[in-house]
Order: sequence, then structure tokens, then C-alpha cells
Amino acid sequence: MEPVITVITLGVSDLKRSVEFYRDGLHLPIAKSSSDEIAFFLTRGTLLALFPRDDLAADAAVAGEGSGFRSFTLAHNVARPEQVDQILKEAEGAGARIVKSAQTASWGGHSGYFADPDGFLWEVVFNPHSPLREDGTLGVR
Amino acid sequence: MEPVITVITLGVSDLKRSVEFYRDGLHLPIAKSSSDEIAFFLTRGTLLALFPRDDLAADAAVAGEGSGFRSFTLAHNVARPEQVDQILKEAEGAGARIVKSAQTASWGGHSGYFADPDGFLWEVVFNPHSPLREDGTLGVR
Repeated sequence: MEPVITVITLGVSDLKRSVEFYRDGLHLPIAKSSSDEIAFFLTRGTLLALFPRDDLAADAAVAGEGSGFRSFTLAHNVARPEQVDQILKEAEGAGARIVKSAQTASWGGHSGYFADPDGFLWEVVFNPHSPLREDGTLGVR
Repeated sequence: MEPVITVITLGVSDLKRSVEFYRDGLHLPIAKSSSDEIAFFLTRGTLLALFPRDDLAADAAVAGEGSGFRSFTLAHNVARPEQVDQILKEAEGAGARIVKSAQTASWGGHSGYFADPDGFLWEVVFNPHSPLREDGTLGVR
């Protein structure tokens, strides 16, 4: 298996609402190949896809019931600590719920979390130990 | 917000077991900065991280209870249809559960799903409409 995740697909309850949140609220570039059935965002590295939750479960041939913590988070690393606060504000303005306001972490970083319309968790984080590469991906050794 | 997901963190129930699955079973390159508390894999573009589930919920300041479908999937696109079967076999040998065996999809692709030790779903997929770039990421327009 090559070391790459090509797509992360979020199973959403209202595709139109989620597309509006990510496209119009967070200004992520949407792929032209998106439709009323599925949306792709041209995020660097791993693409973000949105697909109706029931359809996603059916595609994977698993039961669609589920509740509570989804046991995963997405991170958006930024180059400067003050950008954490800015992006959390941007997300809140777009309809996100702030689940943890920006604060200094025990390990020296600065971070906070927002939840998208379905409750998917995004950490916005400045990590002084791991600089960003020019393309915005994280440099970790 | 820049269009980039820097890290996908999976909240796992047994970090050692999950590290062994991804590092020894699927041969993903592990970052030197990994420890007994957190693991990073050097997947291209977006990094894969493993962190204990309860710690992840605590970091995000959310309740850790949850069950059933996590409402997301990770995809690993491959360049040739026969690689889908090969990688599903590799994953099964590493301890994954095959939740959907490789089959031709209605949209012309070839794909199957496996579940990692915590049940996180990976789709292994050949998409004839979206060629892979040289670095293994997916070319979508």
C-alpha cells in the first residue's frame, strides 16, 4: 500500500447545507465534477468529499446507525498563532459551532476546535515544532 | 482558510495494536517523532495520526461516547484495478476485516472496503475517470 490517503469522505445529513458551509463559508474550492449527489473539494494532499451519510454506509456495505463521538478529527495547521483565532471566527461566521476556543496547549502550540454542521471536528492549530511547507502541508519527521 | 487538511487523526482503542497494523501490516512509514502517546505516519500531503480515543475526545473537549457508523471513510486510490484485490488481501493478512470484497461499481470503478482494528473504513479503489498523479494523489477537476 502506497503511503497516501487520496480522499476523506464525510457522510453528511444534508449535502446542500454542507456544500454551502465548506464552499461559501470556508471558501474551499469545489471541483467541477461535483454534482447534486457528491461533492469534491480540491484540498491539497487528501481531497475532501461530501456524500449523503446513508449512501456512504450503503456503499461500504455497513449499517448506517451511529451516534456520538466519531473518533476522528481533521486538522488545519496554520503558520502563525493568530491565524487560529481568525479561522475559528471565520468558521463560526459560516455556521460552525466552536467546541474549544483557541488556547495555548501544554505542548506549546495554539489551537481550537470547531464542529461543522454535522458535528465533524476540525482542529485549527499552530504548531511551533512542525513548520508548514510552502504548499501548506505539515512538515513532520 | 487555506484548502488543505494537514492531519487526519484516528482515535484508537489500543495505540500499540493500531501502530502495528499500519506500520507492520500495511507498511506505512512511521514518523520518528512518534511516541507511546501518539503516532504519525508520513502519508503524502495529509498525514495520518493515531491517538488514543479518550485523549482525542478530551483534546477536542467533547464527550467520548460514541458507537456505530462513524460517518466517514478514507480512500486509497490505485492505478490499476487488480491492485484493489492485492491491497485488500494485504490488509486482510495484516488483520483487517474485509467489509466489501472487490467488485465493479455502477460508475465503472473497481473497489472494496476493509475495516482497520477499530473499524475505521478504508475504500481501496480504482477510478478510471480520475487518474492518479505521479505522487499518488488523485487528479480530480
